[in-house]
Amino acid sequence: MSSRRNFIEKLTISAVGLPLLAHPTNIFATSEAPYQGPMLKVALMGLGSYAGRVAEAMQDCKRAKITGLISGTPSKITEWSEKYNVPKKSCYNYEDFDKIKNNPDIDAVYVITPNGLHKDQSIRVAKAGKHVICEKPMGINAEEGQAMVDACKAANVKLLIGYRMHFEPKTVAVIKMRKDGEFGKTKFFQGQSGFNIGDPTQWRLDKELAGGGAMMDIGIYSINGARYMLGEEPVWVTAQETKTDPEKFKEGVDETIQFQMGFPSGAVANCLSTYNMSNLDRFFMTGTDGFVEMQPSTGYGPIEGRTHKGPLTQPHVTHQTLQMDGVAALIFDGKQPIVPVDGEEGVKDMKIIDAIFEAVKTGGKVEIKI
Amino acid sequence: MSSRRNFIEKLTISAVGLPLLAHPTNIFATSEAPYQGPMLKVALMGLGSYAGRVAEAMQDCKRAKITGLISGTPSKITEWSEKYNVPKKSCYNYEDFDKIKNNPDIDAVYVITPNGLHKDQSIRVAKAGKHVICEKPMGINAEEGQAMVDACKAANVKLLIGYRMHFEPKTVAVIKMRKDGEFGKTKFFQGQSGFNIGDPTQWRLDKELAGGGAMMDIGIYSINGARYMLGEEPVWVTAQETKTDPEKFKEGVDETIQFQMGFPSGAVANCLSTYNMSNLDRFFMTGTDGFVEMQPSTGYGPIEGRTHKGPLTQPHVTHQTLQMDGVAALIFDGKQPIVPVDGEEGVKDMKIIDAIFEAVKTGGKVEIKI
Repeated sequence: MSSRRNFIEKLTISAVGLPLLAHPTNIFATSEAPYQGPMLKVALMGLGSYAGRVAEAMQDCKRAKITGLISGTPSKITEWSEKYNVPKKSCYNYEDFDKIKNNPDIDAVYVITPNGLHKDQSIRVAKAGKHVICEKPMGINAEEGQAMVDACKAANVKLLIGYRMHFEPKTVAVIKMRKDGEFGKTKFFQGQSGFNIGDPTQWRLDKELAGGGAMMDIGIYSINGARYMLGEEPVWVTAQETKTDPEKFKEGVDETIQFQMGFPSGAVANCLSTYNMSNLDRFFMTGTDGFVEMQPSTGYGPIEGRTHKGPLTQPHVTHQTLQMDGVAALIFDGKQPIVPVDGEEGVKDMKIIDAIFEAVKTGGKVEIKI
Repeated sequence: MSSRRNFIEKLTISAVGLPLLAHPTNIFATSEAPYQGPMLKVALMGLGSYAGRVAEAMQDCKRAKITGLISGTPSKITEWSEKYNVPKKSCYNYEDFDKIKNNPDIDAVYVITPNGLHKDQSIRVAKAGKHVICEKPMGINAEEGQAMVDACKAANVKLLIGYRMHFEPKTVAVIKMRKDGEFGKTKFFQGQSGFNIGDPTQWRLDKELAGGGAMMDIGIYSINGARYMLGEEPVWVTAQETKTDPEKFKEGVDETIQFQMGFPSGAVANCLSTYNMSNLDRFFMTGTDGFVEMQPSTGYGPIEGRTHKGPLTQPHVTHQTLQMDGVAALIFDGKQPIVPVDGEEGVKDMKIIDAIFEAVKTGGKVEIKI
């Protein structure tokens, strides 16, 4: 029933396999000496399948560790607290987690609950004085996102969004090439984000909990990708929705949306977001001096790609391991990733999603200011 | 200055080179015995660079030969008539070519002039009682196309459009797979058609002669490709134009257009047509049971591609050689290519182009009935 996991497995299989190291190389382990600095103490909120992936990845982290758990399901707390050695005193449910305020063993909470719950939960975490790491999409619209930004600012805590690709080595290398001008003037981005979603009863297909359908979950990869690949913010969007299965994809839950963006330089993007096609995960960008294609471009497994200069050869490291060590580096050292992962970055994507949904409704071009 | 030729050369270089046979395999030469049937006697009208490519390709044809020339440039007539052994009595200019009516050495005329001239010239050929082969786009709008269809019907001659891909072995193989259901239900087509056009004074950038810009010339490949890859006719289109160089791309001459189509089954297509990006020539189609990607997908050189079953391995044969032998087979034997190349097929693409231009203007969804 875990169709999302199946999707990811398929993507991984379809990738050209790079030999996996027994102990994945960690980009922060640049010297032989073991890391001696502080560890980011992270509580995981929402113990679903993606949190499981994060938890496993964090076992290889050098600068972050799991120190707390928040779940509405007592049996999960029992299971996870044993598995990850989290003491009962650092385990909470959705009613009492405000008490983390008094827990010195928690620096930050990674909110990995359904999208529709992110805003309130993140704000509660902020009010408890802990840094917020919130899975993407940060909320279900830009207004929610801005409220989260404001609350975290008021509480003087960081708000970081779960943009794991911003730490992925091949993606980082491509963004660096773009910043260094190796593609010349960027002109066109194309993103395909899709898979066949399974179980129709899952929260991802519930308007209240998901805030939408494929767009919120995976279309956002193409949105974010367009921005970091082209290096500009869009000024208009157009979008067309297609729904072939209105029973599975109810009112407000998008099945397939094609969307386009225009950028100040004249660059354009066209993207596909769908929950009703097999395994689409491809980025393509072309500029005046070169191109890049990545496929898979955002799946959990090894990213594969090439530019006009040849194949991308940066070694695969589990994305979430790099992400969480990167988050620790950001929080402790102020070290910024190549493109931001902060709340403001999240709000930009939410503004574009808002505009896409508006464009679907109006059928016309929606001007935006990011 | 021949930017189009440069484009094609680049595409060819970028393709994985298949060993070229000294004498390209001709799909009609299925037996050892030389072909004994009639030869299609073809006059070429408009002796530009593409006609040169057709003329060279026809040297390998088994069922078609060049028997006439029509040009407004006497020096070209002199040069070509010598090169291709065409007697002076079968050479004409644009004033007197109606006289082909009385020339038994001409069965058909291949109209390879600027788009804006196709309609009148094709109708004159039809009225002279000769079959019309007209380069794509057949005209500059659907109304012109329909007038051509009507005129050829009235004159009892065939009207065939220069859809060379309908004879190209890998394309034919993919269409056959689609017809055989090997992709399952087709769901999504993506076409990229683009190159950087050179000389700003060429007719392809003249609204009167070209009827538009990139869309007429190469966007039409993605339109036609969407139809033959998905196996359906679109019911709506949306489109967004971007113009970064209004000096080179004047009013009515499109530089970059993204367009989308929706199909009765719920399948969708998104396409890019541009004269202002480097070498984009890619088709991608996915269905419930498989996918195909072709890159280059419509260039003059070897097409390269793969499906879920593996690489496409059909040998490359010069497209125009196959096309002209195929046209002869159609005219003499009534043998239809895997998808039609007749005037009605051309009108369908023109209707879609009309709708795309309308969608650019209105900014909204344009419903169409093909």
